[in-house]
Parts: sequence; structure tokens; C-alpha cells
Amino acid sequence: MAKFMDVHHGMTGITEEQLRMAHQADLAIEGDEGVHFEQAWADPASGTVYCLSEAPSKEAVQRIHERTGHPADEIHPVPLIV
Amino acid sequence: MAKFMDVHHGMTGITEEQLRMAHQADLAIEGDEGVHFEQAWADPASGTVYCLSEAPSKEAVQRIHERTGHPADEIHPVPLIV
Repeated sequence: MAKFMDVHHGMTGITEEQLRMAHQADLAIEGDEGVHFEQAWADPASGTVYCLSEAPSKEAVQRIHERTGHPADEIHPVPLIV
Repeated sequence: MAKFMDVHHGMTGITEEQLRMAHQADLAIEGDEGVHFEQAWADPASGTVYCLSEAPSKEAVQRIHERTGHPADEIHPVPLIV
């Protein structure tokens, strides 16, 4: 298992409710791929969303995000954390 | 006070020790601007570093990062968190 930070662009105007619903949709099926989405942060002005997860691979993270209708634009493993 | 996610590019090959030292340098002076850097994640392969902070403004975040020698390439307010 490793940590990943994924980034979504083009989410301009996202609301708290939309972010919460998207996160809940991921949480509902994340177990299928052994992924856990820990936290998400959104900047509605620039349309950027960051998701921190623990997962077996970046492909596993993407499969969950694709199934819930919001594929990530970037997924970075983040092995270093302070 | 607000939450910010800042992003540094071009940090390819960054080590755990370098990340820790950069973070410590920020922590040592962050109080001058009323900033607190909460966590940082690095992907040495792509050279990307993400820093989560609480701060009065993005300019305050950048002033700290500039004084410690690693200005951010992007700083996003992230008012939505789940």
C-alpha cells in the first residue's frame, strides 16, 4: 500500500455538497480495489480538487474515480510525507 | 485564516531528508506571517511537492516559502474539505 495525491482540474464552481457527494461515492466502492480515500480539498475558484488516498496502485485509484464519474487528471505517488 | 494547498514542481529526486529540512525551515519562521504548515507530501519521481497550510492569505504562504528558498509554483485556497 502507498499514499497517492490525485488532482482534478476543471471543477470550477464545485460546491461543498458536490464535493461531499463525490467523496461519498468513492468511499462507497473504494473497498473493491483496496483503496481508501482519506481526504479531499477543493478550490472552487480555480476548479482544482486534491484527493489523498492509500491504495495498492495509481491504477486502482483511477478505477474507483472512473467508476464514480470523475477520473483524475493526475495521480502522484507521494512516498515522502512530513 | 484559511486553508491553502501549494504545489512545487521541479523537485525531482527530492529525498526524505531534504523534504524534512525544507519543512523545518518553513516551520521555524512561519509565525512571522501567522502561517502554519500542517503537512507536506512529495513525489520524487515527478518532482512534485504539495504543502497544506493554514494562513491569513496566499501571499503570506508565499513570503515564507520565498524566505526559505523554495517559492511555490501554485498556491490554491481550499475552502472545501471532506
